[in-house]
Amino acid sequence: MRKPRISKPIRLGGVIIGGGAPVSVQSMSKTDTRDTRSTINQIRELEDCGCEIIRVAVPDQQAATAIKQIKRGITIPLIADIHFDYRLALAAMAGGADGLRINPGNIRDKQQIRKVVTEAKTREAPIRIGVNFGSLPPGKKPGRSVAGYMVDTAMEEVRLLESMDFDLIKIALKAFDVPTAIEAYRSIAGKTVYPLHLGITEAGPPRTGVIRSATGIGILLHDGIGDTIRVSLSSHPREEVFTAYEILKSLNLRQRGPVLISCPSCGRSEYDIVDLAIKVSNYLNSIDKPVKIAVMGCVVNGPGEAKAAELGIACGKGKGAIFKKGRVIRTVSESGYLRALKDEIDKL
Amino acid sequence: MRKPRISKPIRLGGVIIGGGAPVSVQSMSKTDTRDTRSTINQIRELEDCGCEIIRVAVPDQQAATAIKQIKRGITIPLIADIHFDYRLALAAMAGGADGLRINPGNIRDKQQIRKVVTEAKTREAPIRIGVNFGSLPPGKKPGRSVAGYMVDTAMEEVRLLESMDFDLIKIALKAFDVPTAIEAYRSIAGKTVYPLHLGITEAGPPRTGVIRSATGIGILLHDGIGDTIRVSLSSHPREEVFTAYEILKSLNLRQRGPVLISCPSCGRSEYDIVDLAIKVSNYLNSIDKPVKIAVMGCVVNGPGEAKAAELGIACGKGKGAIFKKGRVIRTVSESGYLRALKDEIDKL
Repeated sequence: MRKPRISKPIRLGGVIIGGGAPVSVQSMSKTDTRDTRSTINQIRELEDCGCEIIRVAVPDQQAATAIKQIKRGITIPLIADIHFDYRLALAAMAGGADGLRINPGNIRDKQQIRKVVTEAKTREAPIRIGVNFGSLPPGKKPGRSVAGYMVDTAMEEVRLLESMDFDLIKIALKAFDVPTAIEAYRSIAGKTVYPLHLGITEAGPPRTGVIRSATGIGILLHDGIGDTIRVSLSSHPREEVFTAYEILKSLNLRQRGPVLISCPSCGRSEYDIVDLAIKVSNYLNSIDKPVKIAVMGCVVNGPGEAKAAELGIACGKGKGAIFKKGRVIRTVSESGYLRALKDEIDKL
Repeated sequence: MRKPRISKPIRLGGVIIGGGAPVSVQSMSKTDTRDTRSTINQIRELEDCGCEIIRVAVPDQQAATAIKQIKRGITIPLIADIHFDYRLALAAMAGGADGLRINPGNIRDKQQIRKVVTEAKTREAPIRIGVNFGSLPPGKKPGRSVAGYMVDTAMEEVRLLESMDFDLIKIALKAFDVPTAIEAYRSIAGKTVYPLHLGITEAGPPRTGVIRSATGIGILLHDGIGDTIRVSLSSHPREEVFTAYEILKSLNLRQRGPVLISCPSCGRSEYDIVDLAIKVSNYLNSIDKPVKIAVMGCVVNGPGEAKAAELGIACGKGKGAIFKKGRVIRTVSESGYLRALKDEIDKL
């Protein structure tokens, strides 16, 4: 892993983004923001999944007005997602939004932006400059790459905000195309000190979207780039939060809940390891502890990998061995594998 | 993307690995190799999913003997996975295996290795030196990192094979821990000319395993490292092949079947875009063409992203627009979104 880029930290409610703080996980509610009850319920569910920052769409004044009530029902900081109409940004801040996301592609009037910035400065509300491949302003010069133009667009907005003496800035440069997003983020990482919000936009339904998100976000994080992440999936937002944590866990950047090491099974396996692994995986969903559990199916890698875990089972035909911190603590017969492992997990 | 590391190519049956050839996708059968009917059926299913190389476990002589019959029933090259007993390697080659995987952690006798290498040379069968974190030989010096010791182990085996005048070599350095695997692969990439087989071992069931695999393999591929990949999941191997292609597609390294760009939905959406995206995703499973299809839910990014796709729909309340190569070709009412999109997909 490359040494992390240290960005200028901003504070969003109680969450620090950048400056070496842990990479935070955010999501976006998918309810109608005006339906405050559904929105609060969804955000509370996301809080339980570990979501640390929530964004809500603010398509009209009624949605902006709803923020006040939503804020009363939740505990994590709320960001208002604003497009087209600067007055919605003002209304969202009046309702208590902790931060804003504005899209330089569709709020172009400098006087309007100045009004938003003045209010954000008074309230110490950070603004994310959220550039999206799909909604770039017109003006790309022929020969300039799309990634380059995304960077140009963001940097122009950065300079505009700085000229208004505002620096509570966070930047995102999202694209569906992973190499485009990586090129854009890498480029801007060397041009500014502001924290970066990573995302691969419109990544699709989970089956393909988690893979696209993991390659894109993973490559950047491993490169030391990224202060907060949002995974965009066509699904319930809890899948976005889950995926975000799994990406961070795979790079040892965050801990959350257990990690399951399980062998893929092969013609060497004498036991249905896939079935056991899936049952153990389901059981682990109810566990909060950040423990490594190994479910292994053979004598080749089983004992070695199982030893690397806090707890593991190496399954043979008829009987298996339960390891704890590298030491065999029990031998169990085949019918008792799942029960024995669950018992030992509960004891951890 | 970094310029790919150009490795010394090897030929495995009809597939070239390394030397600038497309990154190939492989998997491993999970049936009992001795059960030739089940093994052939599973491999044929994987061939249909795009699997380009198959590996089978060879735990005993009966499994080695089965290779001859399995080879008759399949069309992709077959690799025999050998541990502990060099005689199984000889028997597998006699049965027509196109290549071998040997584990330097558990075949240590040089005279035994020489017998295998002599036969492999005669048959022009490549050998993969498959080092695994979980089955390293003893001998790591204190202070040497695990990744470093994985590299040492592989390089020692490389030198041994080279000393026997054998160079049809491929190397894998698999670990469950993503940063460890990346460190090992990056290190060996600069030390040898041989092609690298990438994998994150024991990545777990699909829900977490695809994410761990995508970050690990994605980071290496983006770094220009990797000639062939195998995703290891506790699930049916078709999921391994699917995930491998999605990783490669996300980095534009391979094409296979359609790509679905779909918006995550938010409080701005006036239509149930998640439901439509999943239905379209399911429909696309039956399509082979490498086309980009966009399912978008709002006026912010919808038209822009939809235009980047060969075909797309931007859904509003009550009616939506179907785009083809950036041009609106039809306006459809809400009840007809799925039907209209399917019709246009079929026409492509």
